Amino acid sequence: MISSSSTGLNCIKFYIEDYLVGYIHREFLPQLAKYSSVFVINSDCVRLHPQLGSFEQRTAAVENVMQDLRGSLKALKGWQNEHYGVCVEGHSRALMSVERAASRVLGIKRYGVHINGYTFLSEPSMAPKPPAHVVAGVEAVEGHNELKLSNVPPNLRMWIALRSKSKTNWPGFLDLITAGGLPYSMKALDCAKKEAREEAGIPDGLLENLKPCGTITYAFDDDAGVGAGVAYLYDLELPPDFHPVNCDKEVEEFYLLSPHDVAKLIQTESFKQNCGMTVLDFFIRHGYVDPDENPRLEEWLQLMHYKLPYD
Amino acid sequence: MISSSSTGLNCIKFYIEDYLVGYIHREFLPQLAKYSSVFVINSDCVRLHPQLGSFEQRTAAVENVMQDLRGSLKALKGWQNEHYGVCVEGHSRALMSVERAASRVLGIKRYGVHINGYTFLSEPSMAPKPPAHVVAGVEAVEGHNELKLSNVPPNLRMWIALRSKSKTNWPGFLDLITAGGLPYSMKALDCAKKEAREEAGIPDGLLENLKPCGTITYAFDDDAGVGAGVAYLYDLELPPDFHPVNCDKEVEEFYLLSPHDVAKLIQTESFKQNCGMTVLDFFIRHGYVDPDENPRLEEWLQLMHYKLPYD
Repeated sequence: MISSSSTGLNCIKFYIEDYLVGYIHREFLPQLAKYSSVFVINSDCVRLHPQLGSFEQRTAAVENVMQDLRGSLKALKGWQNEHYGVCVEGHSRALMSVERAASRVLGIKRYGVHINGYTFLSEPSMAPKPPAHVVAGVEAVEGHNELKLSNVPPNLRMWIALRSKSKTNWPGFLDLITAGGLPYSMKALDCAKKEAREEAGIPDGLLENLKPCGTITYAFDDDAGVGAGVAYLYDLELPPDFHPVNCDKEVEEFYLLSPHDVAKLIQTESFKQNCGMTVLDFFIRHGYVDPDENPRLEEWLQLMHYKLPYD
Repeated sequence: MISSSSTGLNCIKFYIEDYLVGYIHREFLPQLAKYSSVFVINSDCVRLHPQLGSFEQRTAAVENVMQDLRGSLKALKGWQNEHYGVCVEGHSRALMSVERAASRVLGIKRYGVHINGYTFLSEPSMAPKPPAHVVAGVEAVEGHNELKLSNVPPNLRMWIALRSKSKTNWPGFLDLITAGGLPYSMKALDCAKKEAREEAGIPDGLLENLKPCGTITYAFDDDAGVGAGVAYLYDLELPPDFHPVNCDKEVEEFYLLSPHDVAKLIQTESFKQNCGMTVLDFFIRHGYVDPDENPRLEEWLQLMHYKLPYD
């Protein structure tokens, strides 16, 4: 259901100053080696050239390299014109910033915000039924459902988004009501509000209810590079008569689903994986995951809070 | 504030069947080597003798060794006549059971239950003031208070126990309203109820409110051996007119404190360390720890869910 793979053996560590900030696939090294004034490649690590001493110098130098490599590195095909901070000491200090797609090439840890949107219906029987393909997804997992929920209030429902099929990442997958990358220099709460307005049309008055509830951390490794992430989590209780409206074309549809159905969907391949972790964290925090019924509870929490091997 | 040290270099792995279940200080090996029908000592690991094939055989053989070593191993001076399961696959399968003190010699992971007891006062101004030594503890941490709480309801109070000065472990330290070791074959919820009755005199009617809220995991290493633990967490909202009463002489006194005071106390040496993590988890889950105000939030959650190096 949830997984977190450590960085592969085929990676080399990437340092800025003396901070370990990334993991680079060895197969990318021949391309990076062409830029010896930016990347200093040793047998056991890559270092950003020490002459690049400021945030601005580093950001510009790496941006130039990555623009130059857009034609030759697959990972850069998903260029998004979104810059992320390369942060150390939590999210409190950035050494440079880097384009989102390039962060995978360098294996930089990215920060984001994840919101669980939910409501308590006054008349559960009046709630719209989920569409047939969602019901089919729920039914597909029957019988091999590892996560067992208890004590869920019968009128609790969660808002789940279907991601636009034209998105670069995870097109057509199920997702939280809203989530997004956290640009450096933006507060997590401001970012959560911005995403909630853009992706779900949630008005400012309702965003006063946003409640910070911790983090999840995760890492994965594929042919586009190393992806490592930290999401700041928020709960958002919404009034029963509110219906989310997408304003930035990133969402196809929203569904109002029971926690039991959502629990099954996060165990399918149709749910965006890191957002499935965030839903599981919601269930645990709200008291629905009894350790006596879920022997893997301890393991799930450890995977969701995987200690990323960065400084 | 919270810490979790990995098992020291001076330890050797301990296996039962092919499960890695413990870490043993190398300095204990000469004593264990005398019992070659129980412990098979190789250069890189210790194995329980494969001829000990059942739960009962293993438990009896290890018990005999440990009884024999009570005079010579410091860790066994705190013998408690409490048996813990040596569990694999979560808490769902036990390979043998072992006396609590002996679990430190073998570095066995122990399970427990931790309860956060709290209440919402109708008249906050009428609450009894904490005693002078607790106030002094709170004041001592002013000025170097890393954890910053926000959005705490002004009428929320938490019950904190002062552990009996005659307890073997952590005598005279501040603690949760109740907590205890989880014997193998007992359900976590039943154990939580038993501890709540014995340590805080909480009647069965109020225990219906016990809400499972996840786990914390931690490990430490000292001259008594390796201690590794998993605590199953419960929240318990209590009515404002309830006052805990200790029934088993394990608690000196109970204090009703504001979350702000508790937040300061868990950052002092006067609070039992793993229980401080449980309080921090409570603050995070309830929405009082804003990532914009607490740059170490991600790190704290990773430490509290430290992936213990066991199978």
